[in-house]
Amino acid sequence: MDCQLAIIGGGPAGYTAAELAGKNGMNVVLFEKNNVGGVCLNEGCIPTKTLLYSAKIYDHARGASKYGVLVQPESVDMAKIVSRKSKVVRKLVLGIKAKLGAGQVLVVTGEAHIADRHTIVCNGETYRCGSMILAAGSETVIPPVDGLDGIDFWTHREALDCKQLPQSLAVIGGGVIGMEFASFFHSMGVQVTVVEMMDEILRGIDRELAGLLRTEYAKKGVKFLLGTKVTEVRKTDSGTVQIYYENGEGGGTVSSEKLLMSVGRRPVMKGFGLENLGLELTARGHIRVDSHLETSVPGVYACGDLNGVSLLAHTAVREAEVAVNHLLGKTDEMSYRAIPGVVYTNPEIASVGKDEETLKAEKADYRVVKLPMAFSGRFVAENEGTNGICKALVDADGRLLGMHILGNPASELIVMAGMMIEDGRKLSEWKRYVFPHPTVGEIFREL
Amino acid sequence: MDCQLAIIGGGPAGYTAAELAGKNGMNVVLFEKNNVGGVCLNEGCIPTKTLLYSAKIYDHARGASKYGVLVQPESVDMAKIVSRKSKVVRKLVLGIKAKLGAGQVLVVTGEAHIADRHTIVCNGETYRCGSMILAAGSETVIPPVDGLDGIDFWTHREALDCKQLPQSLAVIGGGVIGMEFASFFHSMGVQVTVVEMMDEILRGIDRELAGLLRTEYAKKGVKFLLGTKVTEVRKTDSGTVQIYYENGEGGGTVSSEKLLMSVGRRPVMKGFGLENLGLELTARGHIRVDSHLETSVPGVYACGDLNGVSLLAHTAVREAEVAVNHLLGKTDEMSYRAIPGVVYTNPEIASVGKDEETLKAEKADYRVVKLPMAFSGRFVAENEGTNGICKALVDADGRLLGMHILGNPASELIVMAGMMIEDGRKLSEWKRYVFPHPTVGEIFREL
Repeated sequence: MDCQLAIIGGGPAGYTAAELAGKNGMNVVLFEKNNVGGVCLNEGCIPTKTLLYSAKIYDHARGASKYGVLVQPESVDMAKIVSRKSKVVRKLVLGIKAKLGAGQVLVVTGEAHIADRHTIVCNGETYRCGSMILAAGSETVIPPVDGLDGIDFWTHREALDCKQLPQSLAVIGGGVIGMEFASFFHSMGVQVTVVEMMDEILRGIDRELAGLLRTEYAKKGVKFLLGTKVTEVRKTDSGTVQIYYENGEGGGTVSSEKLLMSVGRRPVMKGFGLENLGLELTARGHIRVDSHLETSVPGVYACGDLNGVSLLAHTAVREAEVAVNHLLGKTDEMSYRAIPGVVYTNPEIASVGKDEETLKAEKADYRVVKLPMAFSGRFVAENEGTNGICKALVDADGRLLGMHILGNPASELIVMAGMMIEDGRKLSEWKRYVFPHPTVGEIFREL
Repeated sequence: MDCQLAIIGGGPAGYTAAELAGKNGMNVVLFEKNNVGGVCLNEGCIPTKTLLYSAKIYDHARGASKYGVLVQPESVDMAKIVSRKSKVVRKLVLGIKAKLGAGQVLVVTGEAHIADRHTIVCNGETYRCGSMILAAGSETVIPPVDGLDGIDFWTHREALDCKQLPQSLAVIGGGVIGMEFASFFHSMGVQVTVVEMMDEILRGIDRELAGLLRTEYAKKGVKFLLGTKVTEVRKTDSGTVQIYYENGEGGGTVSSEKLLMSVGRRPVMKGFGLENLGLELTARGHIRVDSHLETSVPGVYACGDLNGVSLLAHTAVREAEVAVNHLLGKTDEMSYRAIPGVVYTNPEIASVGKDEETLKAEKADYRVVKLPMAFSGRFVAENEGTNGICKALVDADGRLLGMHILGNPASELIVMAGMMIEDGRKLSEWKRYVFPHPTVGEIFREL
């Protein structure tokens, strides 16, 4: 079969590219070995947020008396929480299928294999394509820890399908995924210990905010072991996992019923014939792409987690749009100036643009403009007994370089800061706009 | 005493003007007869949102099983809800006082009276001022209903201090204030009837969204009498209120334990010597102001509800900034193109820019771009069993003219649409920005 565009991988990059190219009249084949939606929709962003919302509802019930509401929080029904999660995923997968259908995209379910620059084989059939968008995504990194083979450990995938709560959970890796699961299982009543190799959780997030969030969770009862390397794991006779670690204070052990591995993700570079394209790689071993996401082989693009640049679903979506627009001959270019990052803990952290560490490293002339979230009346009305922080980084002219927020609903607000950064605008320009009162977002006008 | 700027009224317009002028080195006196913060902070926006958040927490508890969370909602502690509300208000009033103090503003507590263009008398003392900002705000309209004098009815003020819930409540006037209280008391378990003279609730809000919200509340059990005029109210022997009405179907009565009057608000034109300035009025009887909020008397400005233009706290804030910038000789001008409006029901409605009714009346060439909120994965994850709508109105070139949203957190998202409208930008421009995934706000990119 012949097509104009073949896409490998049906995650956010793949389905966005397929839909857009299809809508623009291209003849598109999309190869996906599992469900369209990819990791993000099927076992990532969406299912975790569904679980985390159940956790938030439970948190609300337990904190209700602060708001004058008397409730008896009893328990959680994990089977129902997990089945609702699956229902949400199914609904959204259907939505994507409908969009792909509307774009006349042929979706082929199977493991695609690249034979050469113009040939893909899948399910024994050969597809000839003009252009190619590679969007094979990423996979969980499992570090070589002594004894791990003998443990029935979780990755995010198994954690999402936990129908019976463990008494205790050790989370190895305190990044975004680790912290979101720590937050969820803690809310569900599980005793959680987070083991992080670096000296702070949430690498890549503003250090001050990461520290504040950790303190908040430590107060709630989550245990943190920072600067701590796991050296060995062993199953005990009672069935629990014994985790041996080393840190600045020497060595120690943690015992836990379950173990979640969340040290990170890396691009999937094997198993689909990538090597047959002879693409140029970066020093870090990732596929080299230009600002249109085109690889060293003209007409072959690499989008989403696969190119190793950002590993975020929303980056993947934008990259896919840029790649397809380039294919269509439309002017467009990828910009990474304002990619938001969100940690969906409770409270949330959201960031966009540069952080202080980067600016210091660049010896940039910057200024911090910082306010407690309690400057927003609505935040005070809706967040009894907690505070947060809104931290803007600006250059000498007052131009916004970065925004870092701890406090709900940071995730929904951050894009406004992203728009300002993308357009090189000044913090003071928010003053020109009328923000509804009372909203949490008003705090931007106060900075 | 002499000052450069005298401000009458310490609400959002007054305190914003005072703080900004003070920060810019002006010698400012602010007159306020009650608490700084005005109606908005003391008995409006903030206290209602505090109560509504308690209601939301209670709603969450009652709907928790949908999310797999098992709780027993028991009751509400109205005394605690009301005392928390008062605490939130006190905290925010202190915040404003601190800001005014930092701006070296002299706050005079008392009833100011304008003697002439340059003279204000308050508490027996005479103040001579160079310029004047009038920000006396608005007051509740109590229509001349037969029998109302004999009823111990509520306005928003008494409703906010309700420590013991009535069994039933009749809300006369289904505007924003009426609907927010209807929402609150309904959540608290009170049987609510909304009586509205127009044929739909929420005048000024997109008709489709208003209708959807009404249907939603009707399903929950709130009764609506539309196109209905109250002709008489009487207290019965049992102490309840009997409300006599007329509508297209004839006449009828509603019996209710309490009655809330919320038909509207109007500028305060009397009681502070306004007549001594001889200001020019508009045909509607409001103070005429130009695009710098200056009245027909040079150096005298009228901001906020007093000028009768918008009657929203956030408009007042912006107007005050424009007035002070004009006083300071800075270039600035008031724009009413993108003033958001929010109804803090659950779900919320938020609007900005033009609505269809206005565009039809203008015979404008416009197009509706509409999506169910379920296009956002996060919305689906967090809103079990409900939907919403995101409705954009664009001109022939795709430029955004209006945005109307039903669904949480509409209030926090709407300003992004306002920014686009204010700057005359196209809907398609959102595509250039990376919205974090999953967020509800992403729906803007899908339009």
